[in-house]
Amino acid sequence: MQKNKVIAVDPGYDRVGIAIMHGSELLHSECFSPDKDAHAIRLKMVFERVSALIKKYAPDALAIETLFFSKNQKTAIKVAEARGVISIAAALADCPVFEYSPQEVKLAVTGSGNAAKDAVIRMVERLVPLSKRKRLDDEYDAIALALAHQAQSRFNPG
Amino acid sequence: MQKNKVIAVDPGYDRVGIAIMHGSELLHSECFSPDKDAHAIRLKMVFERVSALIKKYAPDALAIETLFFSKNQKTAIKVAEARGVISIAAALADCPVFEYSPQEVKLAVTGSGNAAKDAVIRMVERLVPLSKRKRLDDEYDAIALALAHQAQSRFNPG
Repeated sequence: MQKNKVIAVDPGYDRVGIAIMHGSELLHSECFSPDKDAHAIRLKMVFERVSALIKKYAPDALAIETLFFSKNQKTAIKVAEARGVISIAAALADCPVFEYSPQEVKLAVTGSGNAAKDAVIRMVERLVPLSKRKRLDDEYDAIALALAHQAQSRFNPG
Repeated sequence: MQKNKVIAVDPGYDRVGIAIMHGSELLHSECFSPDKDAHAIRLKMVFERVSALIKKYAPDALAIETLFFSKNQKTAIKVAEARGVISIAAALADCPVFEYSPQEVKLAVTGSGNAAKDAVIRMVERLVPLSKRKRLDDEYDAIALALAHQAQSRFNPG
């Protein structure tokens, strides 16, 4: 049986969007915020959260967004550090890591690589049955990333 | 008894310089290169190497250099990812992380924050008894970082 279960992580420093999909079914999504603490401790919390979810859901892939640098290099460094930590949470669990650019995610979800953020959110809500509670963008981003990975793996089955 | 043992790590993607000092004595130094493999696997190797050395030497601090961005942002992202991984290796072992800028390291080792690379290497060789074997710059950088941390903690004893 093909498991086709993915954990998609939108890497961030203050907020980490996480979505877990099995086929086209969303099993779980959240926006994880580490407590205010020393930098290394916050990274450790991100690592432990992602590791715990990998352990719980046993995905066969981790999808992560490619980092492109913005004006704010200080933020970009912190996001890259979180990316490293998220990647090894997968690697330590023998879960392969797949990278997608923001353009690839937008293209997969909306049909356009230049789609606006609210178009992505609208399509996520159309494609995935979601409960009514309020979500931050990071969580939508993670669900969009999971959808992009699932679309990709449909064309390239394991 | 004050342990005053530090593991200093010069974060890199292809090469990670590592030095362990107890007081002014160099216990170990190396330049670690992960095998060629998928990105997340290489980061995992860096994590596992640093974790193993922390376990072996039980330092009471990890010193790491602040990352400043260069022209090559792609390299900078990878180095930042390695930094994140190195930081949580310490955090997971309850070892506090201290950051030093390249200027602080140069200042501590040579007396000038603008010292050239070879001046740093010469001072490292003068300050620390080293065996004759050839070393890459990354290893010297890590020893310089360890020296900077030890100089700092002499003024601010735990």
